[in-house]
Amino acid sequence: MPTTPSAQYSLTIRVEIDHKPGMLGQVASAIGKAGGVIGAVDLVEVGDDTLLRDITVDATDQGHWDAITGAIDALEGARVVDTTDRTFLLHVGGKIEQHNKSSLRTRDDLSMAYTPGVARVCMAIHEDRDKAFQYTIKRNTVAVVSDGTAVLGLGDIGPEASMPVMEGKCMLFKEFAGVDAFPIVLSTKDPDEIVETVRRIAPGFGGINLEDISAPRCFEIEDRLKAELDIPVFHDDQHGTAIVVLAALLNACKLTGRDLMDLKVLVTGLGAAGVAVTKILQAAGVRDIIGADSKGLVSTDRSDYADGSMNAIKRWYAETSNPQKISGPPVNALDGCDLFIGLSGARIFPAEALQAMNKDAMVFAMANPNPEVAPEEAAPYARIIATGRSDYPNQINNVLAFPGVFRGALDVRARQITEEMKMAAARAIAQIVNDAEVREDYIIPSVFNRDVAPAVAAAVADEARASGAAAVIDNTIGFAAGDRATLA
Amino acid sequence: MPTTPSAQYSLTIRVEIDHKPGMLGQVASAIGKAGGVIGAVDLVEVGDDTLLRDITVDATDQGHWDAITGAIDALEGARVVDTTDRTFLLHVGGKIEQHNKSSLRTRDDLSMAYTPGVARVCMAIHEDRDKAFQYTIKRNTVAVVSDGTAVLGLGDIGPEASMPVMEGKCMLFKEFAGVDAFPIVLSTKDPDEIVETVRRIAPGFGGINLEDISAPRCFEIEDRLKAELDIPVFHDDQHGTAIVVLAALLNACKLTGRDLMDLKVLVTGLGAAGVAVTKILQAAGVRDIIGADSKGLVSTDRSDYADGSMNAIKRWYAETSNPQKISGPPVNALDGCDLFIGLSGARIFPAEALQAMNKDAMVFAMANPNPEVAPEEAAPYARIIATGRSDYPNQINNVLAFPGVFRGALDVRARQITEEMKMAAARAIAQIVNDAEVREDYIIPSVFNRDVAPAVAAAVADEARASGAAAVIDNTIGFAAGDRATLA
Repeated sequence: MPTTPSAQYSLTIRVEIDHKPGMLGQVASAIGKAGGVIGAVDLVEVGDDTLLRDITVDATDQGHWDAITGAIDALEGARVVDTTDRTFLLHVGGKIEQHNKSSLRTRDDLSMAYTPGVARVCMAIHEDRDKAFQYTIKRNTVAVVSDGTAVLGLGDIGPEASMPVMEGKCMLFKEFAGVDAFPIVLSTKDPDEIVETVRRIAPGFGGINLEDISAPRCFEIEDRLKAELDIPVFHDDQHGTAIVVLAALLNACKLTGRDLMDLKVLVTGLGAAGVAVTKILQAAGVRDIIGADSKGLVSTDRSDYADGSMNAIKRWYAETSNPQKISGPPVNALDGCDLFIGLSGARIFPAEALQAMNKDAMVFAMANPNPEVAPEEAAPYARIIATGRSDYPNQINNVLAFPGVFRGALDVRARQITEEMKMAAARAIAQIVNDAEVREDYIIPSVFNRDVAPAVAAAVADEARASGAAAVIDNTIGFAAGDRATLA
Repeated sequence: MPTTPSAQYSLTIRVEIDHKPGMLGQVASAIGKAGGVIGAVDLVEVGDDTLLRDITVDATDQGHWDAITGAIDALEGARVVDTTDRTFLLHVGGKIEQHNKSSLRTRDDLSMAYTPGVARVCMAIHEDRDKAFQYTIKRNTVAVVSDGTAVLGLGDIGPEASMPVMEGKCMLFKEFAGVDAFPIVLSTKDPDEIVETVRRIAPGFGGINLEDISAPRCFEIEDRLKAELDIPVFHDDQHGTAIVVLAALLNACKLTGRDLMDLKVLVTGLGAAGVAVTKILQAAGVRDIIGADSKGLVSTDRSDYADGSMNAIKRWYAETSNPQKISGPPVNALDGCDLFIGLSGARIFPAEALQAMNKDAMVFAMANPNPEVAPEEAAPYARIIATGRSDYPNQINNVLAFPGVFRGALDVRARQITEEMKMAAARAIAQIVNDAEVREDYIIPSVFNRDVAPAVAAAVADEARASGAAAVIDNTIGFAAGDRATLA
């Protein structure tokens, strides 16, 4: 569906251009006519009769590239020498790296950071394991763990192929919240083995971010790890999405004068995100939620509920939702709905169907890249529209939540991320858009709003402290024997 | 044993000093008389009648600190305000951190490094798993894996307490060879579980460095992982030590005009290092080796061999060493020995016992911090003495080997680190000390010699290519559909 040229399909085209007036203009016009959007133009080399230039061009997709380079080559006096896919180039060698906080240039450096000095630090931790949070990277390090079974919209592509996403996630942790994250991709899909493996590697980490693990396995894996570990475990596909949806909804309700208690909500797609969104909405007070999976609306009347073939999480869903036991395709539940939340896939019903919703309808169509209803088509029937895409207003993006959530949890050494901490995060995100600013196309802050992560971190940390989910932190580094470090 | 003041026990002492002539001199003299060695002296604050100074002082041990601060406090006009243990301070928050290779400041950045652009890179790897080496951190990333059972000389201190050592190891990888290493410490000591766990987390890594895992479990764990994984697995306590011992020995033999074939060698301590050193010496041509563990010299005549209670690796040792079947304490095997290698513990026999060795005896007494024989005491009986300590000549330190070994292996994408690659590494280290330079107190280069790691890397890579242990590397990034990245 992307029909506008974008950076994801950008090329750097190296062109040899005859050295005569007007030639660069001709090349630029040719690229423009072929539908490419020019970014930077650099001069690489000046020859006797020619100039070598690197021209960065956004295209609509890969098929578009040949049209653009062909248009250049068709000109008299310009030749494409080489092209570089900028997205692949950015990935060469991976996107993150390790960095030493201090240098190791002298014997003194070595004797403090490594042997023999390090032994005293080891023994201090051996005597009090809690000191790992003081003297090791555990304090600030999160494992981004995936088995590669539900990567973006790509499905089960395996651990190696999921690495670029996990590395990207680590970049976001660092960029937005200063959290050191490291990708751990697993060559097993077995829930028992995943739980076992994460538990065994946990001692060096301060938190576990589960990522792109398919439903329903993800629910069991997260629940078991939360029970077994004393550090926060957070499945971002569930809770990151849930937090940001709730944040957007808080502002949408403010704008439309609604109360969460009175909402009727339809959720399509009951994977990790759909289930978690439902849970956070229930926790926030929403009472009338109906969910649909690929077989239609879920209720205790459905045959797979009756015959016991429905999995545990869907059974829970059937039992705690759809009070009117509406059945059939999702469209059947739109009547009188206030909020439609799409977490399923492209175009599940015609946009006109939204007409059945209540006045001032709210539509969060989050399938990526192709939303459940195209915003342009939904516009006549909805007052507020949000998507998962960056090229429409109101982008519901997890990056608004997870960096700040872990920052806050690590700061107070939270042992878990509770429902209350997630709710606090949602409120903090919503409040970034103040009463004077909030409007139909601005219910949620931009992912590049640098106020978001610190606000989320503070709210999460406060809530953890208040509810006792955090360890009592003594940030002074005492002058006890064997541990004489004070921070001047 | 350390009786000289050193950085590992250095303090920064904040002292308030009356503002009158000669006071700093008095403070410095007091510190000196108390046995402290002053490094930096910084001015922190100028008050009306006083100056606040930070004085960095090396001490001999922690017990020494009170003597030094007491000496300052005993002066009229000087008061210790605060002290900081510099080694602990260096460890606050850990010693390594994650770093993003490119920024994430704009939507274009995000659309290339993360969604939606990242999806194309994921799919390229999904179609050809080998491309993980091209487009992810796998290419340059090594896991430093430990269960914390044999950390330095500290023994089984557990995973959390081993972290400062593992982080230090990661620093060395980066500092000396540009390898990105990450510590993985395990909450299990079971060999099956360790093998299983490392196998499951392997997809994101380009190599596995096993560290501080106790013998004999370490042998089985390494062997099984080598068989199961297609990336290099290297237990540094074994092979790092073995490589550097062989390197030192090559130069020692050159200096004393010996041939490896003719050496008689005694090895004390048959843990990870002792076994691996024996194996590399055998592979290099040494035929007469005798080993001793805590029960004495190992041979097939020993009762625990006969009754079957000896473990597998020791049985192997008994069967392939000690041709004369000498028994009893290690000292019994010194007669006619050319080389003594100590990998056991402090002071196992009086230095005079070395008198029984051959002329131009070579003594590598590597226990840390207290060698098997003190170099000063061994001097009358040995022509060449090496230790594990940085404050004597000829320090046998693994850091001369492992960074370059992994650098070389990663550069050619070696699937394993073979015996030949280890031998090549040893020769490369030895050759850094050229014929004109080699002498009794210089048989091995300094750990800070920056020529070592590149030389080791080149030798390891060459050997891997020659022997077929490396993958065929195509470093050009082709212009195939879906993968159009060329490096200009």
